[in-house]
Amino acid sequence: MQSLSVALGSRSYPIHIGGGLIDRAALYAPHLHGTAAIVSNTVVAPLYLPRVRAALEAAGARVTEVLLPDGEQTKGWPALDQVIDALVAARLGRDALVVALGGGVVGDLAGFAAAVYQRGVAFLQVPTTLLAQVDSSVGGKTAINHVRGKNMIGAFHQPSAVVCDVATLGSLPQRELLAGLAELIKHGAALDARFFEWLERNVGKLLARDAEALEHAVLRSCELKAAVVSEDEREAGRRALLNLGHTFGHAIEAGTGFGSWLHGEAVAAGMVLAAELSVRAGRLARADAERIKSLIARAGLPVAPPSLSAEAGGNLMAVDKKAAAGRARFVLLDGIGRAALPAAVEPRLVEEAIAAAAQ
Amino acid sequence: MQSLSVALGSRSYPIHIGGGLIDRAALYAPHLHGTAAIVSNTVVAPLYLPRVRAALEAAGARVTEVLLPDGEQTKGWPALDQVIDALVAARLGRDALVVALGGGVVGDLAGFAAAVYQRGVAFLQVPTTLLAQVDSSVGGKTAINHVRGKNMIGAFHQPSAVVCDVATLGSLPQRELLAGLAELIKHGAALDARFFEWLERNVGKLLARDAEALEHAVLRSCELKAAVVSEDEREAGRRALLNLGHTFGHAIEAGTGFGSWLHGEAVAAGMVLAAELSVRAGRLARADAERIKSLIARAGLPVAPPSLSAEAGGNLMAVDKKAAAGRARFVLLDGIGRAALPAAVEPRLVEEAIAAAAQ
Repeated sequence: MQSLSVALGSRSYPIHIGGGLIDRAALYAPHLHGTAAIVSNTVVAPLYLPRVRAALEAAGARVTEVLLPDGEQTKGWPALDQVIDALVAARLGRDALVVALGGGVVGDLAGFAAAVYQRGVAFLQVPTTLLAQVDSSVGGKTAINHVRGKNMIGAFHQPSAVVCDVATLGSLPQRELLAGLAELIKHGAALDARFFEWLERNVGKLLARDAEALEHAVLRSCELKAAVVSEDEREAGRRALLNLGHTFGHAIEAGTGFGSWLHGEAVAAGMVLAAELSVRAGRLARADAERIKSLIARAGLPVAPPSLSAEAGGNLMAVDKKAAAGRARFVLLDGIGRAALPAAVEPRLVEEAIAAAAQ
Repeated sequence: MQSLSVALGSRSYPIHIGGGLIDRAALYAPHLHGTAAIVSNTVVAPLYLPRVRAALEAAGARVTEVLLPDGEQTKGWPALDQVIDALVAARLGRDALVVALGGGVVGDLAGFAAAVYQRGVAFLQVPTTLLAQVDSSVGGKTAINHVRGKNMIGAFHQPSAVVCDVATLGSLPQRELLAGLAELIKHGAALDARFFEWLERNVGKLLARDAEALEHAVLRSCELKAAVVSEDEREAGRRALLNLGHTFGHAIEAGTGFGSWLHGEAVAAGMVLAAELSVRAGRLARADAERIKSLIARAGLPVAPPSLSAEAGGNLMAVDKKAAAGRARFVLLDGIGRAALPAAVEPRLVEEAIAAAAQ
């Protein structure tokens, strides 16, 4: 097991990474004060919930379970209401621990429920997808979707701890594994040229679910994200660089109806668009944009958006939460590992990049 | 105009108290970044919204309005959804300012909407009831109700500023004025014997809406609450003393269906119960309990709960959000102005106090 600390003053928390961690009562015990509610979904729960429950009970907790349907469409008011109802019905108090067991949807939703239940109770993440292990479990962002925008309603609420059991990735559908690879590529492309090169060399091992490669990739990716989040918890500055590919990615997700494209797939195509835009804005060498596109393709991920017209893409972006005072913002690249957030981008270049990618 | 600062480090904010303040663009200007959404209700809006809107526009803002029905039953998911929908429809970004114009319901709901919209935007309170001016506008508590408990879903989200225009109290229905007096009495009884004595001498002037007396009472009450909140923003310790009368009060509100008793009325009867419990626990002199009951009666407020059986009261309290690990907690009095939060209270004494008050 390897552990790293996300340094956020009084809200600092550990991330534990290794195989078989979900069974270890000692990882949960420091965060328990009598009661816990495991929030999971109907796909993940049969695989891992009994083991997490046993570990929590071994640590002395009275445990409640809340099972949600699987999928992005779960991430809205009704499921939030269901979780809150369950916490109330179990008479959980302010000292309860909410344990999110599943992927990003479960983590975002359970984290938001924990953020607002009785104005905030503790929560602990047990991410079981690669994407959740390297992305949504680090940084304290919680949210649900609005019909007109992803993650429009949420809170910053840091977990008490994150338990990344890489053994749970063995049961992950291939498509979801690939979606997680998109996030690894994003961290390399935006923040660390050496990690990007490591990914270029090891993408084959990751696709074959080599345990050692996965553990290294999750650790390095969490380190990169944790460093950024420590500097900029509320996303006032540097943290926004982690949104490489997201302005386009969210537009793809919204345009296709949340759930038909996985978040990682949308971000993958979004990164190709962002790289194209970076080239057109005169910031990125064409060869580096091609390296990004090539790695994404080798990872089995989409390199182009679905059949959105440039106009539809533009409209969708206008309602994206990145829009400040009516302008969408884009993370661009000045090189591999060197993301930047320019004040404004010519709308014409955006249209051109979308048109080029759609061909 | 008098101003005080609620000292909370980087989240410190001013409270301005005086007559005619809602028209002053200069009080809003420092908190605007282009867009504002006024959240109000259908009773308050016709009286004051055009003036607040004019002041915001004079300060350079593009203004959106969201009007909710009046009353405590508004404080739930549907109205929250309505506010969020309106913010999305107006394409407001993270730099928007939410302006809560109305009483505690509007303030709590609009504040919670601001806390969760895009993971948090700024908000400014313009409380138009006495209760909101002295209670809900100070401290950053925002929330909505759950069908099984008041304020079960919420967030701590400090306002950017509070504008208390005491002239708006002229239009307040008498019953709501009295409900605000309950909060003043609570602050005196829990925290400041001298202010309690001032209230004993000046309750007549307050009932007659003497402007000078109201301004002094709002200022002193905000000062008392601000001092406590500065010490203990997240209600880990001393801030809980402000909940004098609330464990019983919430039970009364829940037992009668939220809305038929005003919050202040429930807290008034709750304080009499808490004083009775304090006497039975051997902490408070009977004469001091009588002073509290007498002042509450002189303020035209209820001194006894409605026809709840002791059993119903006990059941209701069990689901109250104050319940930690299945035990309700009570703020008791060791004297006028000296509230305390004992670790536990004998359930038998609680039943006796409820039974005594019901007679």
